[in-house]
Amino acid sequence: MLSKSQISFVKSLHQKKYRKEHGLFLVEGIKSFKEFIKSNFKIHSLFYTSEQYNLLPKLPANINLFEVNNAELSKISTLQTPQGLIALIRIPENEKINQQELKNQFTLVLDGIQDPGNMGTIIRTADWFGFKNIICSEDCVEAYNPKTVQATMGSLARVNVYYEDLNLLLEHNKIPVFGALLNGQSIYETNWGKAGLIILGNEGKGISDGVIEKINQPVTIPRIGGAESLNVAVSASIFCSEIVRVKN
Amino acid sequence: MLSKSQISFVKSLHQKKYRKEHGLFLVEGIKSFKEFIKSNFKIHSLFYTSEQYNLLPKLPANINLFEVNNAELSKISTLQTPQGLIALIRIPENEKINQQELKNQFTLVLDGIQDPGNMGTIIRTADWFGFKNIICSEDCVEAYNPKTVQATMGSLARVNVYYEDLNLLLEHNKIPVFGALLNGQSIYETNWGKAGLIILGNEGKGISDGVIEKINQPVTIPRIGGAESLNVAVSASIFCSEIVRVKN
Repeated sequence: MLSKSQISFVKSLHQKKYRKEHGLFLVEGIKSFKEFIKSNFKIHSLFYTSEQYNLLPKLPANINLFEVNNAELSKISTLQTPQGLIALIRIPENEKINQQELKNQFTLVLDGIQDPGNMGTIIRTADWFGFKNIICSEDCVEAYNPKTVQATMGSLARVNVYYEDLNLLLEHNKIPVFGALLNGQSIYETNWGKAGLIILGNEGKGISDGVIEKINQPVTIPRIGGAESLNVAVSASIFCSEIVRVKN
Repeated sequence: MLSKSQISFVKSLHQKKYRKEHGLFLVEGIKSFKEFIKSNFKIHSLFYTSEQYNLLPKLPANINLFEVNNAELSKISTLQTPQGLIALIRIPENEKINQQELKNQFTLVLDGIQDPGNMGTIIRTADWFGFKNIICSEDCVEAYNPKTVQATMGSLARVNVYYEDLNLLLEHNKIPVFGALLNGQSIYETNWGKAGLIILGNEGKGISDGVIEKINQPVTIPRIGGAESLNVAVSASIFCSEIVRVKN
């Protein structure tokens, strides 16, 4: 039986302010939870219904365990249909990305992405295509937003998400900077070299002015039909796919 | 000033049942509305705030026009932040797709897509890449769901969406059937020929058994990293992009 204060503590983590204050975020559903158990993330607490108990993997030490009923779980869940399990997981310290590591890989750089679903889909897609790191501008939606976590389908446990001042990052950067723009070279004819940053902009406003200046190679997904633009998660996916196609 | 019954009529169209009964759906925002004005869709009514009046394009005859204030618009809008304009537009009669037309093009076939955002993103992406038609199984989410319409960003005005019994369609079909599956040939090495159906399955369950049997060529987007699957709108986009790359 959860106390009122336990319920209100977990519910507070639905909000960014309290996630930041307590350094914790929610993961719902055993499938996603299992991905975090296998990762370096630290599990803080686990709330599960009795039906989920037998499905639990072997747990590391020092987790607060709470068996709850469905009504209690509904109270602390962010979902309309709770999935029987909620974990509170530590938000990792936001270290800066290692510039050395960037030299041998392609990395997505997100400038002002606002939609949590888009952010989650981009993390999931990056994971599928083996992109290890994503760098976000500081005004991007939080990767630990419950809708984002849900949309990553567990991939947040495998892809490192960094929040950085992109202008600073790009000032000190020494690898090619590709940008998803409407007036660039065709993505199908781009010479990718062996490493690069792929910049994708905000859903409505695109890439910000300061960042646009730092792009060495504007790249365009050719348009055949009438749509004015592509969804940013779709664009990101086509970039990932095309780089994997050419590099493998 | 809208009457109570006018307000409740428009609000009823937020629900599928009443959209079906009245054969009308909502389009919000002048940008999307302008795409429908240019199309064969028939506009039934238009609700706009005075600020939007000067932005209106030349309107066809026989539209019911209502100037409304922001409070009234909020009452009939499906959005948290209404965009100053709502059009009621006729849902086209659901004719069957012309099998003859399929012979010279690639067509996305959606089997049980449930998420309105995914459906809308697929329509938008198909439009970008010049795919003219999308065929949906009868249990797919409605293309006229307000969230779908919003996610298409006006592309619903240009892409024809058909709802059909896929088993029947595939029985009478004479062109190659490609299916997005996990155990197929690499999408980067697929020989597409000159026309085909591209089948994409439900978000959780994938392609249904009866439909799987009809696939001539399973196709896989190669996985490099750890994610278990891709979002279906992402998969659809990569199929569209890859076909356009190879065919152009």
